[in-house]
Amino acid sequence: MRYSPMDENYESRIRSSFEKQGIMQTIGGQLLKVEPGEVHIEFPFADALTQQHGFIHAGILTTVVDSACGYAASTLMPSESEVLTVEYKVNFISPAKGEKFMAIGRVVKPGRTLSVCSGEVLVKEESGYKTVVLMQATMMFITR
Amino acid sequence: MRYSPMDENYESRIRSSFEKQGIMQTIGGQLLKVEPGEVHIEFPFADALTQQHGFIHAGILTTVVDSACGYAASTLMPSESEVLTVEYKVNFISPAKGEKFMAIGRVVKPGRTLSVCSGEVLVKEESGYKTVVLMQATMMFITR
Amino acid sequence: MRYSPMDENYESRIRSSFEKQGIMQTIGGQLLKVEPGEVHIEFPFADALTQQHGFIHAGILTTVVDSACGYAASTLMPSESEVLTVEYKVNFISPAKGEKFMAIGRVVKPGRTLSVCSGEVLVKEESGYKTVVLMQATMMFITR
Amino acid sequence: MRYSPMDENYESRIRSSFEKQGIMQTIGGQLLKVEPGEVHIEFPFADALTQQHGFIHAGILTTVVDSACGYAASTLMPSESEVLTVEYKVNFISPAKGEKFMAIGRVVKPGRTLSVCSGEVLVKEESGYKTVVLMQATMMFITR
Repeated sequence: MRYSPMDENYESRIRSSFEKQGIMQTIGGQLLKVEPGEVHIEFPFADALTQQHGFIHAGILTTVVDSACGYAASTLMPSESEVLTVEYKVNFISPAKGEKFMAIGRVVKPGRTLSVCSGEVLVKEESGYKTVVLMQATMMFITR
Repeated sequence: MRYSPMDENYESRIRSSFEKQGIMQTIGGQLLKVEPGEVHIEFPFADALTQQHGFIHAGILTTVVDSACGYAASTLMPSESEVLTVEYKVNFISPAKGEKFMAIGRVVKPGRTLSVCSGEVLVKEESGYKTVVLMQATMMFITR
Repeated sequence: MRYSPMDENYESRIRSSFEKQGIMQTIGGQLLKVEPGEVHIEFPFADALTQQHGFIHAGILTTVVDSACGYAASTLMPSESEVLTVEYKVNFISPAKGEKFMAIGRVVKPGRTLSVCSGEVLVKEESGYKTVVLMQATMMFITR
Repeated sequence: MRYSPMDENYESRIRSSFEKQGIMQTIGGQLLKVEPGEVHIEFPFADALTQQHGFIHAGILTTVVDSACGYAASTLMPSESEVLTVEYKVNFISPAKGEKFMAIGRVVKPGRTLSVCSGEVLVKEESGYKTVVLMQATMMFITR
């Protein structure tokens, strides 16, 4: 779906916000695509992010795709608003084995107050990208 | 509810597994209570874990309570099994403002293959602990 | 938790709304307890509500506990508002075998706009009630 | 995605199972497409299925899309297995105003034990179909 952002400076606003996420520096997240209703964040494997079997912890995969979904919603909000995660649901559908990951957040239903987003985390394999995580999330705009 | 663990060495097994979670060192998680069907993990605020407003990122709160729920399920599994997170759903019900947090995972329905857990993250306030996160999760036992 | 309703006529408002739910007549739901932040609805087994194995369909269990959660939230809203289900997540933790069921909705976190509720469906067994369904839901108040 | 069913008689097996769902007769559900990994069920508006504002109850929309997802998973299971709903999460993204609805269930990740499905309910409008419900579900195969 094509969306028209209300804030023409959405991209610089979001890139500046992303810089302030301490966790994204810890994770090594790179903000790639920032388009109306869709945001991509790439991140590498790191021992500092693992669970007991040496794979990236489910919660870290969740962290990055939550940021991707939140920023995807944020592309469509007024400049003076802020976005909060109301809730999300995540299925872990394949082992997150790999060196490079991509989290994608997409707005499925934009709203004035609540936006519903769909997210996924992909792992880079030799033959292409494979989905390892599926998220369905509700984001909220607030004016402070 | 009272549960009887199948593996009498569940606590040492879980404490040893916890040591292997690289992410728990990154987060500064401390494994406190490990009892049949219930696990507590404490963790502090850190700038390295924040979102854009300076609070702990929703995904990090999720990470710790996912570990708490996974280990809670794990207290009730056979020693040769491993636990995987199938899926979870998380509501963020209050801002995670504070210096000290506690994630609690509890088994609501134990099973041979799937266990349903309930989790929460509490923030320490002057007057006591306040719930900021609610999780409902499905864990799976597998034998490798 | 103890809640103070904003609308002192919350109970008659809710009982009157319940009467208008055509589906509750189809299901045979009886509105029992209506207290601030908590609502109970009882319903019987019926062949007209079954899935292929002859048990009540998961979606019907969901329907009743959704109504219980929605009305639980509704006990705490202003009289001129309406309540909508934003989303819910449901785990089916035991087979719904039985003749009599009880759905319970409870407000976990009340809010001006969004309320988080926890719900369950219990089946009546000889030895007491057993939980068969667990719900975590987000409700929204709107003013038309 | 293209899937190869393990049971070549999956369609007749599913159509026969559908006939046994008492609730589908109550709702007036019609089983349309039954293909590997995807199932469509159509159903009409009825006063007997409404909530207090006269629209179809969220739980009934859930019921039909749960059946669609369960049968979508079921297209890919061995003939001697049965499918159970482990859990689902549903977002209600638009009012379900209309006379005719379509529930679609799709397998996103098939598995030997667990399958992850994605579902939606569409309402027929003059200009086409609009999505009103989004589901993310986990189905389980068991052998009785």
